Amino acid sequence: MLVSDLNNVRYLSGFTGSNGALLVFADDRPAVLATDGRYRTQAGRQAPDVEVVIERACNLTLSTRAAEAGVGALGFEGHVLTFDAHHALTGALAEHPNTGLVRASGTVEELREVKDAGEVALLRLACEAADAALADLIERGGIRPGRTEKQVRNDLEALMLSRGADGASFETIVAAGANSAVPHHRPTDAVLAAGDFVKIDFGALVGGYHSDMTRTFVLGQPADWQREIYDLVAAAQRAGREALAPGVALCEVDAAARSVIADAGYGDTFSHGLGHGVGLQIHEAPGINAKAAGTLLAGSAVTVEPGVYLPDRGGVRIEDTLVVGNSPELLTRFPKELQIL
Amino acid sequence: MLVSDLNNVRYLSGFTGSNGALLVFADDRPAVLATDGRYRTQAGRQAPDVEVVIERACNLTLSTRAAEAGVGALGFEGHVLTFDAHHALTGALAEHPNTGLVRASGTVEELREVKDAGEVALLRLACEAADAALADLIERGGIRPGRTEKQVRNDLEALMLSRGADGASFETIVAAGANSAVPHHRPTDAVLAAGDFVKIDFGALVGGYHSDMTRTFVLGQPADWQREIYDLVAAAQRAGREALAPGVALCEVDAAARSVIADAGYGDTFSHGLGHGVGLQIHEAPGINAKAAGTLLAGSAVTVEPGVYLPDRGGVRIEDTLVVGNSPELLTRFPKELQIL
Repeated sequence: MLVSDLNNVRYLSGFTGSNGALLVFADDRPAVLATDGRYRTQAGRQAPDVEVVIERACNLTLSTRAAEAGVGALGFEGHVLTFDAHHALTGALAEHPNTGLVRASGTVEELREVKDAGEVALLRLACEAADAALADLIERGGIRPGRTEKQVRNDLEALMLSRGADGASFETIVAAGANSAVPHHRPTDAVLAAGDFVKIDFGALVGGYHSDMTRTFVLGQPADWQREIYDLVAAAQRAGREALAPGVALCEVDAAARSVIADAGYGDTFSHGLGHGVGLQIHEAPGINAKAAGTLLAGSAVTVEPGVYLPDRGGVRIEDTLVVGNSPELLTRFPKELQIL
Repeated sequence: MLVSDLNNVRYLSGFTGSNGALLVFADDRPAVLATDGRYRTQAGRQAPDVEVVIERACNLTLSTRAAEAGVGALGFEGHVLTFDAHHALTGALAEHPNTGLVRASGTVEELREVKDAGEVALLRLACEAADAALADLIERGGIRPGRTEKQVRNDLEALMLSRGADGASFETIVAAGANSAVPHHRPTDAVLAAGDFVKIDFGALVGGYHSDMTRTFVLGQPADWQREIYDLVAAAQRAGREALAPGVALCEVDAAARSVIADAGYGDTFSHGLGHGVGLQIHEAPGINAKAAGTLLAGSAVTVEPGVYLPDRGGVRIEDTLVVGNSPELLTRFPKELQIL
């Protein structure tokens, strides 16, 4: 199989460069990693068990290599290779009529869905770094009226680094006041004001693994509508977490949380899926939403993140990262009670 | 044309969400932007001139829309759409025999290669933020023996944010001592020591535009070999910058710098291309390397970044971002003389 997705290459070989592909054999021949000259030293260090070939056109090089090695059926990642790249492979293999391309989309992602102990350990470290950074930020009074969304974001990202993160695991969301009604708002120079919801969706990256957590605060005493939707989202989020177990249909997990919000008459305001897998990518299998097929697997790491968004007023999202098991392991341990800052 | 690449969608419409596609007509019908429910509010704000359709399967929705609008030939981005996505489009269009798919790879990227005044202004701001952050870091003594690569990285990234950056434009490289010989080293807990080269490759992101700069410092008095390769790389970098002009072959720009290094006997140690375009992506057209076809265009923003890397000893890279014109505009203005820290 020709593995072209860089996260899949990393998962199977350890190599983290930005250009590379991996040829994996069905028998016990060692895998072959292709990358370019920038990564010669790094590839040797990170992937000592594979043969390293230095050649910029990684996919083409490895498909030819497979053909020359007598491979009859070469799997390729149809969800990763572009139309143009697949076309080029077909051209290169035209000279090798005994080697055919076989679509093998999602094969490695399926393996990645269940995390091993080392992966869970890295996810735990990532979530701990995020928890600690948010606690630091609050302890130093970093979320208060008069500061801007960007200032809060900058502090939080710096605190994650100081707590051991390699970086932010995605673009940090800090959304104050009416901006909190935008599910994926980007921080602006908007100034936090008394009475605002402040929604913070962020994560830390540790050893390639991503944490993901959302907390929503209120600046000063909450209005009745704020307390109402906060309590509602918290109840939905609890229901979602409690629905997590091996073998449960993904759409049922979504429904467990969504029905709480819908029953309260806010169904239209919860405009996204309940959650997603996390690991080497911030969004990976499984998706947890109303249309998802399949069931939860033991060892899968997922988010549970319902929200209620009232346009031009404000919104609440509460999100945790958990590992599915007989009872789910909560990795993001920062408190979820409504905090008045 | 169906535009699927998110940077291309942003370039043409202003929309910055993480899921979306754009249908652009050859006549004066307004473009149609498809995205999912998370981005309803944002899409309306960022792309007021286009029609917004909320539907998660953006490419499929827009191709059906094109067929229903009587489009005969629908361009698609073969370098962006995956094999599987193209297959799904073909399936969806099977019911519309009058609409055919036509490969239009790179069409929008070609437009993006020449920057307009607004884009150059954002690149200038990005480069200024990076320049200022590095100056701040040095002024406060942030690069000194006893500190780790990660600490230097953390400070530099925080300083970029405080200088107005929206974030780092890629994973900051801080490589000390022998690590400086690894062209794309990731910062570790390695401690900076007297006598080390410290190579820092980093950039700021402002309004979606990326800056890119490398500077190499030495801690304490440089050894002869350090001064020799520093002066050599500086001379090669100057030759590369001086070769920048509209109409010059890309491979000749590479050769102008590479020949300086090769003539000194270090040709084998310069293991990557001379530079690349920068803009909405950190790496975009044109590539400047020995195999590049085509010529430089006026208004193109590019890097010039030769390096000499001596395994297990150390390496030097010096990189600027410039805009090509009758005389190139240097955007990264931090000094390039060897600085002894």
